[in-house]
Amino acid sequence: MLSFGYAGKTYPVNPRESQILGLKTYSRVGDITEPVDFASITVPAQAVPEIVEECLAKGIKAVQVLTAGFREISEEGQKLEEQLISIAAKGIRIIGPNCFGVYCPAGGQTILPGEDFPRESGPVAFISQSGGYAVRVPRQASGWGIRFSKVVSYGNACDVNECDLLEYLREDAETRVITGYIEGVKDGPRFFKLLQEVSKTKPVILWKGGLTHSGARAVHSHTGSLGGEEAVWDAVFKQSSAIRVNSLEELLDTTLAFLHLAPYRGRKVCPVGGGGGITVAASDACERVGLSVPLFPTQLQKKLASMVPPAGTSVRNPVDVGSPFPLPAALRGVLEAVLTEGGVDAIIVDEIEMSISTPSMKGFGGNHGELTQVPVDVKKRLDKPVVMVLPVEAIGADALEFEGARRNICDYYLSQGIPVYLTLERAAKALANLAGYYERRDAISSPSDSGN
Amino acid sequence: MLSFGYAGKTYPVNPRESQILGLKTYSRVGDITEPVDFASITVPAQAVPEIVEECLAKGIKAVQVLTAGFREISEEGQKLEEQLISIAAKGIRIIGPNCFGVYCPAGGQTILPGEDFPRESGPVAFISQSGGYAVRVPRQASGWGIRFSKVVSYGNACDVNECDLLEYLREDAETRVITGYIEGVKDGPRFFKLLQEVSKTKPVILWKGGLTHSGARAVHSHTGSLGGEEAVWDAVFKQSSAIRVNSLEELLDTTLAFLHLAPYRGRKVCPVGGGGGITVAASDACERVGLSVPLFPTQLQKKLASMVPPAGTSVRNPVDVGSPFPLPAALRGVLEAVLTEGGVDAIIVDEIEMSISTPSMKGFGGNHGELTQVPVDVKKRLDKPVVMVLPVEAIGADALEFEGARRNICDYYLSQGIPVYLTLERAAKALANLAGYYERRDAISSPSDSGN
Repeated sequence: MLSFGYAGKTYPVNPRESQILGLKTYSRVGDITEPVDFASITVPAQAVPEIVEECLAKGIKAVQVLTAGFREISEEGQKLEEQLISIAAKGIRIIGPNCFGVYCPAGGQTILPGEDFPRESGPVAFISQSGGYAVRVPRQASGWGIRFSKVVSYGNACDVNECDLLEYLREDAETRVITGYIEGVKDGPRFFKLLQEVSKTKPVILWKGGLTHSGARAVHSHTGSLGGEEAVWDAVFKQSSAIRVNSLEELLDTTLAFLHLAPYRGRKVCPVGGGGGITVAASDACERVGLSVPLFPTQLQKKLASMVPPAGTSVRNPVDVGSPFPLPAALRGVLEAVLTEGGVDAIIVDEIEMSISTPSMKGFGGNHGELTQVPVDVKKRLDKPVVMVLPVEAIGADALEFEGARRNICDYYLSQGIPVYLTLERAAKALANLAGYYERRDAISSPSDSGN
Repeated sequence: MLSFGYAGKTYPVNPRESQILGLKTYSRVGDITEPVDFASITVPAQAVPEIVEECLAKGIKAVQVLTAGFREISEEGQKLEEQLISIAAKGIRIIGPNCFGVYCPAGGQTILPGEDFPRESGPVAFISQSGGYAVRVPRQASGWGIRFSKVVSYGNACDVNECDLLEYLREDAETRVITGYIEGVKDGPRFFKLLQEVSKTKPVILWKGGLTHSGARAVHSHTGSLGGEEAVWDAVFKQSSAIRVNSLEELLDTTLAFLHLAPYRGRKVCPVGGGGGITVAASDACERVGLSVPLFPTQLQKKLASMVPPAGTSVRNPVDVGSPFPLPAALRGVLEAVLTEGGVDAIIVDEIEMSISTPSMKGFGGNHGELTQVPVDVKKRLDKPVVMVLPVEAIGADALEFEGARRNICDYYLSQGIPVYLTLERAAKALANLAGYYERRDAISSPSDSGN
């Protein structure tokens, strides 16, 4: 907390020390004379109930219990956890046990191994039954320019659970997109109803862990939850507009889409690339996740044909501009024509070399700044979704210089509201998840409310 | 060719120049007095047939035609291509047209934009109907330590086609694993029969592009091929032991598995990680692709429990060692116990911090070299498959230093015969593809040949 820069007062409590990190240290919670808002508890499991009682007596409103060794490990632990539940009922809220706590940049608070998390707030919330993901998601997300309102690792959820958090985040003005990693829910019907409600106004992107046989077994020994049947969860996702994702990467990819492309609504896309094989793969990848790549009208095809070389290209959709190093004016013309006359909802640009990724490409570097700028200008001028794919081409330890150049361009696009993906498959899936949200939201709302 | 370091003689042919890059230049092919083995043709499409005729007259055995603008673009182009076919019939082999040619490090030859490809040979062949992938696959593969015997971009395949190449590679002593990107085949029955034959002795990893509706449309304007029905291709993959992949990443991941883990045979795995959520996701990811995560015998569970902290861990399979920074001795103990008593075919190690990926982790760095070494030692001692997952955690342009450290560790593992994957999902899919190959190969071979 100190190195993260918490601005309020901090009172270490420890019976054996009089000073910790230069702060006056108290033997017991009750010894602190000033009022305290929140406690973070890390004592061994057996001692936790007593400490929470002391916090209650002190008038502390909420605590987080980081300690593990409760319901998830034994009957004895189960009993300890039941004690916590009884204490909570007397008027104190408990996050955990078996968790990493809360990251809330606006409040200057971070989770246990989160001293390096960004200090700035952002519009995304993440609730996680897993402590590990409460670290990995914000850490990786930060590199994608994603910033958080609140991240809550809530572990065993003995008191504050996923439903309470959803209710809170629905009202939280700081939060625009809700994301979560969930293993099991405490109250299925309440959770389902809330999910339906909340996702009417804010997208809820959920990664449900433990849907397979051995996954459910792992859930049990992790947070002591029941994983739930895959069929039940299928129905939950179908009957709410919550967005289902199956990996950390898909969670972040989809969040990026909601941050930069909402309210995108359609499924019609045009992949634009600099190579024929790539346009084939782009079509396959888009169609496999439920996007469509509609054939362009003849008029537009003719127009596009006048902008690209005559051989080794394609203008029917996808558009193959013939080389990963097109002239900036040609790429600009293609993107503008497609977005104004192509009847598509978004363009995905892949296999255009926006950065020098290998030594042999240095000769092509003359107009790179200009080429990089094209998608930004087009997106601004036409205010339509443009998505970039910038794969890691230079993979070895000896190619780090090129990876640095690629990352700089990624950061630039992200700063301009253009989402960037590592592969075309991932870009397509994120767009499909985005479109699916609006489709289901419209279908679920009353007929009089539903748009096109 | 010159900057790649071709060691033989090179004869530029150009009617307007007497010297190119310091080499004596000939007006016509026939003017060269010495014998010539191979020609690379880049003249405009209309002039190609005449030049190939000249090569034939000169006694050249084979040519590659890089020029585009044949069958894939117009009827006129189709006629030009038919001329090439007639000339080939007279006794010269043609690769292309509409291709990037051949990369063969042993022969000092590379494809058009491949001057930066590795000079060393390796056991992997790649045949590609797409020129773009003939560049991207070797370039990315090189960062994963994969080296090639031959890469052939064969484009429209007017003469030398995928079947000829498969036949060649079956006999090629340099090639142990065959990979390919294919859009359409010339002779379905011959291709299918060859695939069955070849994959009895060498794995054939195939990415078939254009299996969706719009993908097939894109195939037509790319290499003038017919894409073929998905159902037909499903049957081809089921009835041969060829390995089907759906993206460039999966092709490389699977290749890595064959290079380092063959002859791996089973589907039973144990994910080992440093976090409970991760073991849940590992179980899900493994089961979703058809691997199994069998519950460990009580005896082994007890043994493992004695090696990891009592709370916040799991020993039933997957194994959660409780922290991404385990003591080296504890990780060693776990890996050895699992490989000797767990009855699994492979271990997948995920979420163990083998490199310092963030500033806050620097405090944990004391025994890093020792921790990194554990999987290498265990794999060597027990000679059983160990697979590493080393995700890119530090994504932003400001975190390049950590990415550098991660890549160094990747390179080290690859040099020790341990495949490395970027995500657990990708590791699991590669292992499933590997296991599937041996299963189908055994099932297809005669009953008297089939093993367990």
